[in-house]
Amino acid sequence: MNNDWLNLIDEMQEGSERAMARLISRVENREPGWLDAMKIVHNKSGKAQVVGITGAPGAGKSTLTDKLTRELVNRGHTIGVIAVDPSSPFTGGALLGDRLRMTEICSLEGVFVRSMATRGALGGLSLAARDVVKIMDAAGKDIILIETVGVGQDEIDVVKTADNVMVVCVPGMGDGIQAIKAGIMEIASIFVVNKADREGADRTVAEINMMLSMCSNPLDKKIPILKTVASTGEGVTELIDALVEDLESREEKKDWQEERAREEILTLLEKEVARYVRGKWDGEKGMDNAVRQVIARERDPYSIVEEMVKFLVMDVQ
Amino acid sequence: MNNDWLNLIDEMQEGSERAMARLISRVENREPGWLDAMKIVHNKSGKAQVVGITGAPGAGKSTLTDKLTRELVNRGHTIGVIAVDPSSPFTGGALLGDRLRMTEICSLEGVFVRSMATRGALGGLSLAARDVVKIMDAAGKDIILIETVGVGQDEIDVVKTADNVMVVCVPGMGDGIQAIKAGIMEIASIFVVNKADREGADRTVAEINMMLSMCSNPLDKKIPILKTVASTGEGVTELIDALVEDLESREEKKDWQEERAREEILTLLEKEVARYVRGKWDGEKGMDNAVRQVIARERDPYSIVEEMVKFLVMDVQ
Repeated sequence: MNNDWLNLIDEMQEGSERAMARLISRVENREPGWLDAMKIVHNKSGKAQVVGITGAPGAGKSTLTDKLTRELVNRGHTIGVIAVDPSSPFTGGALLGDRLRMTEICSLEGVFVRSMATRGALGGLSLAARDVVKIMDAAGKDIILIETVGVGQDEIDVVKTADNVMVVCVPGMGDGIQAIKAGIMEIASIFVVNKADREGADRTVAEINMMLSMCSNPLDKKIPILKTVASTGEGVTELIDALVEDLESREEKKDWQEERAREEILTLLEKEVARYVRGKWDGEKGMDNAVRQVIARERDPYSIVEEMVKFLVMDVQ
Repeated sequence: MNNDWLNLIDEMQEGSERAMARLISRVENREPGWLDAMKIVHNKSGKAQVVGITGAPGAGKSTLTDKLTRELVNRGHTIGVIAVDPSSPFTGGALLGDRLRMTEICSLEGVFVRSMATRGALGGLSLAARDVVKIMDAAGKDIILIETVGVGQDEIDVVKTADNVMVVCVPGMGDGIQAIKAGIMEIASIFVVNKADREGADRTVAEINMMLSMCSNPLDKKIPILKTVASTGEGVTELIDALVEDLESREEKKDWQEERAREEILTLLEKEVARYVRGKWDGEKGMDNAVRQVIARERDPYSIVEEMVKFLVMDVQ
C-alpha cells in the first residue's frame, strides 16, 4: 500500500483537518488504494456516536444543526458534520436554503464540516456516507451529525445508519401525519417540533404523540418529543440532554450494532459483486449479442440475466 | 407457469384495464411467476414511445401532462401515464401539489394512469418503471408519459430510459442555470418554458439557449425550446409537433436503443446477482462470525467482502 495513504491517516490522527479532507476526497473518488486505506480506518474507528437529523425542507434543520454543534462543543465534544446535499437539478436552491449558514461552524475548534452530494456518490450514498463517518470517527470526532433532507430512499438509508435519528417537524405542516404515512416512525429516536414559537406547536406535539401511541414501538421505549426554536437556541439544551440519554440507553443494546454491521457487510457485498459483474460482462461479445437479441425481441433480458446468474454461481453452490 | 398470469396478459391485450392494473401490481409485488410473466410481456412490447417529463416542483408538470394527454388522444393515440410519486416522508404534500388533477384524464378513452412510489420499489425505481412501461406497451399504448419530479438519482435514472425527455422550467426561477449545473442538459430532448405568460419567459428562453450553445451536444442536434401555458393549453400543439419530430428523428438512430438495452441488462444483472448474494449469505454462520468480528474491530468489512467476492467468482474466471 502506498505510503501516501498511510501518511494521510497519520496526519489526520495527529489532528490535521486538511489531511482528513484529502482522505475523504480520495476515498470518495475511489483512488487506487482506497479500500486498503478504509481497512485501516475501520480498525481505528468505532468510538464516535452518529446522529441523523432529518426533516422537511424549511423545517430549520441547518439552524438546528448549527446550534446543536455549538452546544456540544461547549460541553467538550469534538464534532463532525456531514451535510447531505440533495443536489436536485431543479430544487437546488429551494432545498438547500440556509445550508450556507453552516460554514460558520467550520471555524469552531474541533468542528469539521463536510458536504456530500446525493448524486454521483460512487457505490451509493449510504456506503459513501458510512466511509466519511468512519474517517471522522478515526480522526477522533466524538459525535458525528448527519443532516439530510428526507427525500428519496437513498437518504433514508443514510439516516438508518445513525445511532440516533432526530426527526424535525414544524407546526402546522401536518408533518405528524405525513411522517407516519411514510414509516419514518420506525427510524425516529427523537421528534423535534422546531419553530415552536409559531402557532400550533402544541397541536403538532399532540398529533405526534397520538400517532406514536398507535404505533408499535420496536425498541419498546418512549420516544421523546421536544420543542425548540433553533433560531434563538430555545430548547436546544433540553434536546441535547434527551440525545445524550438516548445514546447512553442504546449503548447497552448490542442488537442494533449487529444489525448495522450485517447491513453494512451485505450492502458492500452487493455493490462489489455488482461492480465485478458489470466489469466482467460489459463490452464482452456475449453482451453485444444479448443486446442485439433484446432489441430484436428474439430474447428477453430477464431470461438472459437468469442464465448469466446461473453461469456465474453454478460452481459455487 | 401459472395460468393466472397468462389469463391476465390475454385479458390485458384484449383491452381490459383492470387486468393491466392487476398485472402491474402483481409484478410490482414480485408475486411468484412475475419473471416468467415479464418474459412474455417483453416479447409483446417494443412498439410504444416513451416520453419523460421532468422539472422542478411547481413547474406545472402535472397540468402539462394532462394537456399533452388530451391533445395526443385527440390525435388518435392511446396513452399510458406513469406518475412517479416522490413519496418523501415530509414533502409529500408540497411536492405532489396538483397530482390529484391527473385523475381526471383517467376517464378519457384509451388513457391509463398509474402512480408509482419512489420508495419501496423492489429492485429499484428504474427497473420497476421499466416493467410498467413494458406492460403498458404490451397492452397496446402508443405513447407512455412518465412524469417525475427531478429529485434524486433514482428519478434521473427513470427519465434516462425514455425516448424523449422534456425538461420543464418556469420563468424567473434561474432554472436554466440550475439545470446546466446538474447535468440535466445531457438528457434533455426538449426544453419547455411553462407558465410563459409570466414575466421573464423570454429571458429564461435566452438563458437556456445560451447554455445550450456552450454545451457539447451528444446527438449533434438542435434542442428545441418551447413556451407553453399549460393551464390554458397555449403552446401545447407546437410542443407535440416538436415531440413527434424528435421521436421520428430518433427512430433512425439505433445507437441509443443499444445503449438502453445494454443498460437494462446490466442493471437487471446487478440486481439479480446482488439478490442472490444477499440470499446466500444472510443468516449463514459465516456471516454471523463476520458480523461479530466487525463489531469487535478484529476484522474490517472491506476485507471480508473482498474475500467473499473472491470465493464467489474464483471458479468462474
